[in-house]
Amino acid sequence: MSYLGVGVSPGNVPEYHGTNLKVVDWRVRVAELVLRCAICVLGILAAVLIGSDTQVKQIFSIQKKAKFTDMKALVFVVVANGLAAGYSLVQGLRCVVSIVRGTVLFNKPLAWAIFSADQMAYMMAAAVATALQSSVFAKFGETELQWMKICNLYGKFCNQVGEGIATALIASLGMVVLSAISAFSLFRLYGGNKVKSSVTW
Amino acid sequence: MSYLGVGVSPGNVPEYHGTNLKVVDWRVRVAELVLRCAICVLGILAAVLIGSDTQVKQIFSIQKKAKFTDMKALVFVVVANGLAAGYSLVQGLRCVVSIVRGTVLFNKPLAWAIFSADQMAYMMAAAVATALQSSVFAKFGETELQWMKICNLYGKFCNQVGEGIATALIASLGMVVLSAISAFSLFRLYGGNKVKSSVTW
Repeated sequence: MSYLGVGVSPGNVPEYHGTNLKVVDWRVRVAELVLRCAICVLGILAAVLIGSDTQVKQIFSIQKKAKFTDMKALVFVVVANGLAAGYSLVQGLRCVVSIVRGTVLFNKPLAWAIFSADQMAYMMAAAVATALQSSVFAKFGETELQWMKICNLYGKFCNQVGEGIATALIASLGMVVLSAISAFSLFRLYGGNKVKSSVTW
Repeated sequence: MSYLGVGVSPGNVPEYHGTNLKVVDWRVRVAELVLRCAICVLGILAAVLIGSDTQVKQIFSIQKKAKFTDMKALVFVVVANGLAAGYSLVQGLRCVVSIVRGTVLFNKPLAWAIFSADQMAYMMAAAVATALQSSVFAKFGETELQWMKICNLYGKFCNQVGEGIATALIASLGMVVLSAISAFSLFRLYGGNKVKSSVTW
């Protein structure tokens, strides 16, 4: 099957050498697949690490239990990473089909949809930032505001949350790179040369 | 002066109609200029609103002063918005020169530099998210963690911070759109058609 020739009339054959474009496209698709899989795994890991974290503390006769729902920022991280993991799984499957079929994304509406959905990178960055902020309060307190540090009390809980946030941070960095890749896949379609979209993805 | 003909050999004349590309380019550059100016103004406004905010409270014989440096997230917002305002001013000037000269950005290294710098949109989103998070704590407290609400005490201070954060939020949304515009300006250079870069910007 001709790779680039499909839908390209003789009048608008791209000037880039076909092999160059083929290599670039191949690398982009493989990089995308690897990143999608990594984000899927890391997102699940972060959500499970934080979501399953609890610690019970006996203070005299009172039993206190720390759980992630006590802090809204942690709920935000768990939800954001769960969503990202599910979304990355679906997108990863699309990448696999695309690689197996050897097709290229020339469909503008689909490229726009993927680009828009990948903007969830901002949501993930915001979730990690708020969780980091809460962790700093929990670890060091904020004496001016009389917010006490609570990690002295719930050491094991705080450590596991820290691991979860670190995992979520790596996942969100991956999402930022993916967002740039989907911008590349979309906006190169607006280059000077108009390739007809008979190959859909 | 020929708009598209510069540096384009007869062999690789873009298939898009010249007028279409001209109109798209014109709109993109004007949109970019308007956004850069808006972010510059909003960034300064947010930084000034938060940075200049203080409130003194007399509690019996003790005088307590609330200022933005008491909360790290607010310092982060002031710094991020100050940086964004300065950066937008410089980029706005570049846009003006580009529009006056009637040139198009065909220089890949420059486009990469602008695209990379525009990723500060993530920093701005993170700053706004952490400030919002702190504001929620300050307004409503977090009873499970024994973090008291402080906006009862410093009402005027909290209101002005709220206005500052709202302004920073609008600026960061503008930065997200700008980031997409610079991705467009960069990655369309990687379209099928290779336009030689004798016009630099």
